[in-house]
Amino acid sequence: MKNKELAEHLARQAAQASRKLAIAPSKQKDQALIEMAEALERRSSEILSENQEDLNEGRRKGLSSALIDRLLLDEDRIKAIADSLRDVATLPDPIGEVVGGWRTPEGLVIEKRRVPFGVVAVVYEARPNVTVDAAALCLKTGNAVILRGGSDAYHSNRILAEVIMGALLEAGMPAEAVQFVPSRDRQVLVELLQLSDHIDLVIPRGGEQLKNFLVENSKVPVIYAAGGNCHVYVDASADLADARAITVNAKVQRPGVCNSAETLLVHEAVAGEFLPAVAADLIDRGVRLYADERSRAALADLAERVEPATEAHYATEFLGLEMAVRVVDGIEQAIEHIAEYGTGHSEAIVTSDLEASRQFTEEVDAAAVYVNASTRFTDGAVFGLGAEIGISTQKLHARGPLGLKELTSTKYVILGRGHIR
Amino acid sequence: MKNKELAEHLARQAAQASRKLAIAPSKQKDQALIEMAEALERRSSEILSENQEDLNEGRRKGLSSALIDRLLLDEDRIKAIADSLRDVATLPDPIGEVVGGWRTPEGLVIEKRRVPFGVVAVVYEARPNVTVDAAALCLKTGNAVILRGGSDAYHSNRILAEVIMGALLEAGMPAEAVQFVPSRDRQVLVELLQLSDHIDLVIPRGGEQLKNFLVENSKVPVIYAAGGNCHVYVDASADLADARAITVNAKVQRPGVCNSAETLLVHEAVAGEFLPAVAADLIDRGVRLYADERSRAALADLAERVEPATEAHYATEFLGLEMAVRVVDGIEQAIEHIAEYGTGHSEAIVTSDLEASRQFTEEVDAAAVYVNASTRFTDGAVFGLGAEIGISTQKLHARGPLGLKELTSTKYVILGRGHIR
Repeated sequence: MKNKELAEHLARQAAQASRKLAIAPSKQKDQALIEMAEALERRSSEILSENQEDLNEGRRKGLSSALIDRLLLDEDRIKAIADSLRDVATLPDPIGEVVGGWRTPEGLVIEKRRVPFGVVAVVYEARPNVTVDAAALCLKTGNAVILRGGSDAYHSNRILAEVIMGALLEAGMPAEAVQFVPSRDRQVLVELLQLSDHIDLVIPRGGEQLKNFLVENSKVPVIYAAGGNCHVYVDASADLADARAITVNAKVQRPGVCNSAETLLVHEAVAGEFLPAVAADLIDRGVRLYADERSRAALADLAERVEPATEAHYATEFLGLEMAVRVVDGIEQAIEHIAEYGTGHSEAIVTSDLEASRQFTEEVDAAAVYVNASTRFTDGAVFGLGAEIGISTQKLHARGPLGLKELTSTKYVILGRGHIR
Repeated sequence: MKNKELAEHLARQAAQASRKLAIAPSKQKDQALIEMAEALERRSSEILSENQEDLNEGRRKGLSSALIDRLLLDEDRIKAIADSLRDVATLPDPIGEVVGGWRTPEGLVIEKRRVPFGVVAVVYEARPNVTVDAAALCLKTGNAVILRGGSDAYHSNRILAEVIMGALLEAGMPAEAVQFVPSRDRQVLVELLQLSDHIDLVIPRGGEQLKNFLVENSKVPVIYAAGGNCHVYVDASADLADARAITVNAKVQRPGVCNSAETLLVHEAVAGEFLPAVAADLIDRGVRLYADERSRAALADLAERVEPATEAHYATEFLGLEMAVRVVDGIEQAIEHIAEYGTGHSEAIVTSDLEASRQFTEEVDAAAVYVNASTRFTDGAVFGLGAEIGISTQKLHARGPLGLKELTSTKYVILGRGHIR
């Protein structure tokens, strides 16, 4: 099939299956999730052998060891994926929830009900477990899913999708509810992104490059789960021991993820005391620091270990052991800095002052605004959503961790008795 | 200024003002709305003289009398616009509402708060009152607004925006919160649609052509308030008197709007009795009917007044006194037909059968699904939303009438005590 025909075929099949899925009882969906978990474990040797193909290809292509590790599946990882499916099965089904209801003056009875989107396309990069996660969250929410994974994990993704579709059939559900894109040609994705009649939503899981590709190409509505240029601001009134712990945690606990901090902002009143201590902690843990002039003055003793900060440093999501530092005149300048460079992901203030806390949480525009806690907490599991398909940095539809409810839409159902206007 | 510079200037000004607006107290916003109402009435002669320019231009260009009527302002219409502003001032402010909150096992206190989008661009066609409505709803929800009206109403829109901005200043608020696009060049709109860093949302108010223009051109997230190809399905068990009243109301009460019905579907068991009666009603009111073969058989006595229906008729939003008719085998075929041709706006069943009601409301995928009521009720005021900026037919973010809450996003605020992961 040509790319366009292939895309249309996938989207039509998904759209058809989505109508059955939308009315499937929770019990049947949960049964399918459990079948999926069992099938993954039962067929693990097939999965591992396809995964081996990807690993071999990856090594031939010279992928970095970090990327190879992201690709790698083993018995333990398969077990973990299967367990996460069993967890999703235990979560409450959001579909059918009546989110509001009332009677109008004319006597119409209105209900607003939670319903599936219909067809969700998930576009992702190297990790094969996303194939299973995305399929599971979409199934649970009554959505058909089109899976378009990274080409490095092609063989792994294909076998995982096949295993899932087999399990759907076992559970008496349409296998077409999960559509795997059987091509590595990016043009198929471009064609899928034109099909706004059949596909209701696209969720990209990946970096800014993938986001920009979708901004350019998608006619289907998108929820962007994009990058985080997150800040920690240490206020004049901060408990400096807390500030030190939070800064170090936000930077080094897992520096490669989107909720880790990239820039430290420090109130000038505490810079002299705070900066040398926190900088020593960070440098000890291998963090490279890029500091503005006032920070470097406070860090004179560590001068050899600290580089001058540029505009570009403040604008960068390092995703590694690097951090920009700036001394600010006060909370207003900190809020200004965040408005200028932040990506609206997670922002933290360390303070003991009530008014500073109020001002920061009101004026900083981000998905998650923290007072006296690390930015690293922005996460579906921590927030208690049960499962997460990504963290949205856009304001339309859903902001912050995307759980099951965020994968749904609503519908008004109106009951009359022959009402006319 | 060149188009691109102009667009960037407008968007930056709006983004800056939006930060002040986001934290403005309700009282101040409501005061500004009342100032706006008073300024409109006080400056009505200026407004009417600019409106006269548009009318003169429109007549020179040979606009239809319907379009001229949409353009026209007079003292009564200005009074009505001013009153609608006073109504918006009395509505509860959605900003700051805590929509959820809980404590995590680690002891973090999480609140999910309703916040403004930031900057909303509203793109609309002929009616100048939209300039005021859109500005009022955005102001109430703490959003800065960029207004891009139709070029036929250019002079009216410009003076209305000027009056509104003056009133904002009087109320001590930034006039930059309302940005009027001072150019009729469509290229400025194209440039605005690229500025996803500064503009958070675009709402088009207009037909399918405007929607398609935005699908092609916008990098900013969009809520589509698009067309409605709505159906009335008369079930075998329907009260036929109700069915007749509902069908006629849904078609003729205001045929030019998106929630009017375009196709009548009738269960074969009642076609013989129902169709001649309802067809006579419709024809009496000037409706042209396009009927399939089975319908025409039932309408043999009216054969001269009924044309054969084509595929194209079923796919058309007539927005006028025309209606397609089809006899179906039963509810499944009706649901199929709606899935094929419907635009997900408003769909109605007339039935006395509980199971048919359940099946229809569950399986029909639309913003509003009616049982025994006219599709004409899909409206923000009828639904009790107080005010409406359009009716969304998309599933992302908001579906159905867009009231004040639908013009907001949310933010998580998390309070810790030195929490780290």
